[in-house]
Amino acid sequence: MEVGVDKVVRIGLLGFGTVGSSVYHLIQKERDEILQATGVDLRVVRILEKDLELERPGVPQDLFTDDYTDIVGDPSIDIVVELIGGVDPAGSLVEGALTAGKDVVTANKQLLATRGATVFDLAKQAGKQIRFEASVGGAIPIIKVMRESMMAADLHTVYGIVNGTTNYILSEMFKGAGDYEDTLAQAQELGYAEPDPTEDVTGADAAAKMAITASIAYHSRVTLDDVSCEGLENVRPEDVQYAREFGFMVKLVGAARLVDERVNVRVHPALLSQDHPLASINGVDNAVFLEGHVIDKIMLSGPGAGGVPTSSAVVSDIISIVSTDKAGFLQDCSCYKDRDFIPDAETSSAFFIRTRVEDRAGVLAQISSIFGEYEVSIESMIQKGHGDQAELVMITHPTIERDFFAAIEEVGQLSCCRSPLTTIRVL
Amino acid sequence: MEVGVDKVVRIGLLGFGTVGSSVYHLIQKERDEILQATGVDLRVVRILEKDLELERPGVPQDLFTDDYTDIVGDPSIDIVVELIGGVDPAGSLVEGALTAGKDVVTANKQLLATRGATVFDLAKQAGKQIRFEASVGGAIPIIKVMRESMMAADLHTVYGIVNGTTNYILSEMFKGAGDYEDTLAQAQELGYAEPDPTEDVTGADAAAKMAITASIAYHSRVTLDDVSCEGLENVRPEDVQYAREFGFMVKLVGAARLVDERVNVRVHPALLSQDHPLASINGVDNAVFLEGHVIDKIMLSGPGAGGVPTSSAVVSDIISIVSTDKAGFLQDCSCYKDRDFIPDAETSSAFFIRTRVEDRAGVLAQISSIFGEYEVSIESMIQKGHGDQAELVMITHPTIERDFFAAIEEVGQLSCCRSPLTTIRVL
Repeated sequence: MEVGVDKVVRIGLLGFGTVGSSVYHLIQKERDEILQATGVDLRVVRILEKDLELERPGVPQDLFTDDYTDIVGDPSIDIVVELIGGVDPAGSLVEGALTAGKDVVTANKQLLATRGATVFDLAKQAGKQIRFEASVGGAIPIIKVMRESMMAADLHTVYGIVNGTTNYILSEMFKGAGDYEDTLAQAQELGYAEPDPTEDVTGADAAAKMAITASIAYHSRVTLDDVSCEGLENVRPEDVQYAREFGFMVKLVGAARLVDERVNVRVHPALLSQDHPLASINGVDNAVFLEGHVIDKIMLSGPGAGGVPTSSAVVSDIISIVSTDKAGFLQDCSCYKDRDFIPDAETSSAFFIRTRVEDRAGVLAQISSIFGEYEVSIESMIQKGHGDQAELVMITHPTIERDFFAAIEEVGQLSCCRSPLTTIRVL
Repeated sequence: MEVGVDKVVRIGLLGFGTVGSSVYHLIQKERDEILQATGVDLRVVRILEKDLELERPGVPQDLFTDDYTDIVGDPSIDIVVELIGGVDPAGSLVEGALTAGKDVVTANKQLLATRGATVFDLAKQAGKQIRFEASVGGAIPIIKVMRESMMAADLHTVYGIVNGTTNYILSEMFKGAGDYEDTLAQAQELGYAEPDPTEDVTGADAAAKMAITASIAYHSRVTLDDVSCEGLENVRPEDVQYAREFGFMVKLVGAARLVDERVNVRVHPALLSQDHPLASINGVDNAVFLEGHVIDKIMLSGPGAGGVPTSSAVVSDIISIVSTDKAGFLQDCSCYKDRDFIPDAETSSAFFIRTRVEDRAGVLAQISSIFGEYEVSIESMIQKGHGDQAELVMITHPTIERDFFAAIEEVGQLSCCRSPLTTIRVL
């Protein structure tokens, strides 16, 4: 953006919920600091909100409007900050702001993960910036680090724990706090899970964040539809406890990989070695773990949500916009490649398997023989008797997933198998 | 910097050691990628090196010069990358480059920690940028994150594990691998410690990095002289093992705090709870742990050294320079405050204490009475008999350090005390 002689930057806020009001108050509080540090005077001059009657202590009533054209159509506004969320109408407002020649800051993961290409193209055409640090990992500067610091790092793997709700539930299950339903109820009581937790527990929230993350990491457009997704509804406490016996933790992991110039992005529960840096990310914390040919392993971690931390990411985006050369570097979100995807079935994964079988001679031979046919080889195994049944828990070596699932289907049809086979990937 | 129509950025390298040659090769390798991503064509056009006769495969011989004026005095060179290290002559070259109107990238922690104020003032006067990501934490983008992403985070505490050698030694001692001398020798064999390890084990290397870190975090100049520093020469294997019994690890920690607008920066061994995120940083890895009034806790971790990872930080600095608005935001390293320091004696710390005492009635009462006088209160204690002596290991509650050390001196003079008192801070 162009900053005038007085370096006043005029901001319009769309939305005044938890994050929106935190952004407003943070700018008020840090305004002098930011002016001293950067020479830029940030001013929130207009706020879009439906309810104009509601009194909001500490916020001048005349800042509010319920007409978006007062913001998008006001030529004196430099930067529009969109904190409404959801694809529509937020998307139209963002697109309108860019078209009107404004830079945009947004925290809207749904919009970027579904209509990112359109939005970024518009920004490029308009010669304007769109920044979205708060869309992934709250206050953790994941986007800026990937876009700017990892430019020459040649990233090939990004693992993310990008959903606090599911990480809280799995952390509690690891501690032995109860089953999935109990810990979810507890998370809801503590405000760590929504009354309707579907977006979180199905992995959809994490999938949107991983689509954005992968797009930036690999300079190629990844949308929500490109991300396969498995939630944690099928993870039982006994899986978590067996994983623990094998030296693992269970986490809901987003994995974005670049293999032979092709991309695979997915979200699923995964066993992680208790020594893995991501295993130390507990409770509602988030983290991304980056691996590149140049940088080895780098991890960023911290609070992945919360109005106040997230507002810090929004304000840093505003400052980044003001500080970025207007010639346009870094503005196209670097999606200049058009990479192919690797179908999940062609990828290779190690697996944790749990099932109940008839406890008699020959059963293990039957199962092993099927695994052998499909080249699934077992790395370690625990067997525990339960009356006339035995619980069989195995960890495999990495196998092509197509072969692995074919073997699992065949094993599941054996008459000795007394329960569906639980399968969880091992990272 | 100003980028011409063709967006060619001409780079002069000062120094062609491990990092210098990695930077050269990384730019060659990633040049097309960077051009596609940013529209900028990076070209290394001149390299300063003493030995012009040495053949360097893959590098055109005519790039080399042994005359620095060929770089600093060449008006066609846009950015000078200083990778010589040490305060002089590197400092004069950096200052010369800035005066000649070039932007500078440097990895030189000694220079910045001692003559940072001069260098940054020069950059400001010249309207040029100096960036120095590689000076702290290798490839981990600590500086960029603090300067740009944490602008509104209102940081008050920065803990750093910023020296890989000492972290390796302490990680090995925690595993019970042997005493300080053994593990140091082993680190030297593996190339994790220099033949002369003084800079590392005394904490001087970490102190320089913490001076830079604190300057950026608190927008106030902190030089090496302002950082008090204690190495790990006095940490014995038994301290590490007792700490372990209490649920702690020992790390060499840099701690930069802002309390009531005053700064305290120090480097010392410290007991960290085994649950603390920094406790998971093992081997030669580095990390910084940031706490702010706005962001809660954020940690960045990864490899803190190595030519190849460090070169990624240097290249990202070059790209950041090219992408930054030339109006000058963020260029003054934000040291616009002139904060006072808090003397160490006025700070408050919890301590681990170990000593040998005569094993007879009344000894503990004597010691406790002195601690009571100075308001040092004990949180937990282990006592173990060794013949007619007892080993006494205590963890205190936080105490003003002046009082604590007065108490320790008095206890040390008791006739029942049979060994000097080991004291290690607890974070």
